[in-house]
Amino acid sequence: MTEQFVCNPIGRVSSPYKEKGDAPAQGREKNLVSRIIIDPGFAGGLEGLTVGQQIFVLCWFDRSARDGIKVHPRGKMENPLTGVFNTRSPARPNPVSLTLVTIQEITDNILTVCGLDALDNTPVIDIKPYSGKIDEPMQA
Amino acid sequence: MTEQFVCNPIGRVSSPYKEKGDAPAQGREKNLVSRIIIDPGFAGGLEGLTVGQQIFVLCWFDRSARDGIKVHPRGKMENPLTGVFNTRSPARPNPVSLTLVTIQEITDNILTVCGLDALDNTPVIDIKPYSGKIDEPMQA
Repeated sequence: MTEQFVCNPIGRVSSPYKEKGDAPAQGREKNLVSRIIIDPGFAGGLEGLTVGQQIFVLCWFDRSARDGIKVHPRGKMENPLTGVFNTRSPARPNPVSLTLVTIQEITDNILTVCGLDALDNTPVIDIKPYSGKIDEPMQA
Repeated sequence: MTEQFVCNPIGRVSSPYKEKGDAPAQGREKNLVSRIIIDPGFAGGLEGLTVGQQIFVLCWFDRSARDGIKVHPRGKMENPLTGVFNTRSPARPNPVSLTLVTIQEITDNILTVCGLDALDNTPVIDIKPYSGKIDEPMQA
């Protein structure tokens, strides 16, 4: 009854984080350099992006569990269980990550970025330019 | 050869925008009220969210084309074609939207929010709390 949608990766992450536990809870905490290798068929979609620009990278965390509805924030048992949609846990019904990074280099179909928190070989499903007009919190 | 991933909606949008063309290019431009109706099986995932909190809503824009690699920003022909990953166009290889909204009301499995730009009945695939620590642009 429930419709499903098929996500096709547009590329992969090449990252210094090889195994679960290597990656920081948030990429900015280590701020290491990763590369995003876009499939050649999608590389034209990078046109217009520039070095220094901030982008949201959306990955599919393919090694994360998908069955959690309540989670311990940051995976720490001492943090009380809360709803998964009130956390940035990678283990979520659709394990889509959202990370704001800065482009350091662009070479053909490869973006070098700083601050990504994805394991090596993680599928990338989308890239969006950051825009202060719509991505900054609204005033209360 | 290329792996694919299945996205299961966690709920649906109930919105004043009924047909393509009704919705603003960005929700904040009209700032109307929408409701996010979470499937009961996922409603526990909302625990901890509060009125006034800002959240990212990720939808699957199921009525958008997926074949564009170059697009005219904001769908205006006078805007020169650019790479789709340098735009927030809803028409993209994986039509996942990202919109920051404020929670106005929470009643059981229903969130009332302001500023969403999704058509009525659009599937919702994820909700994430906004966090200044990771979602504000880095200093250059």
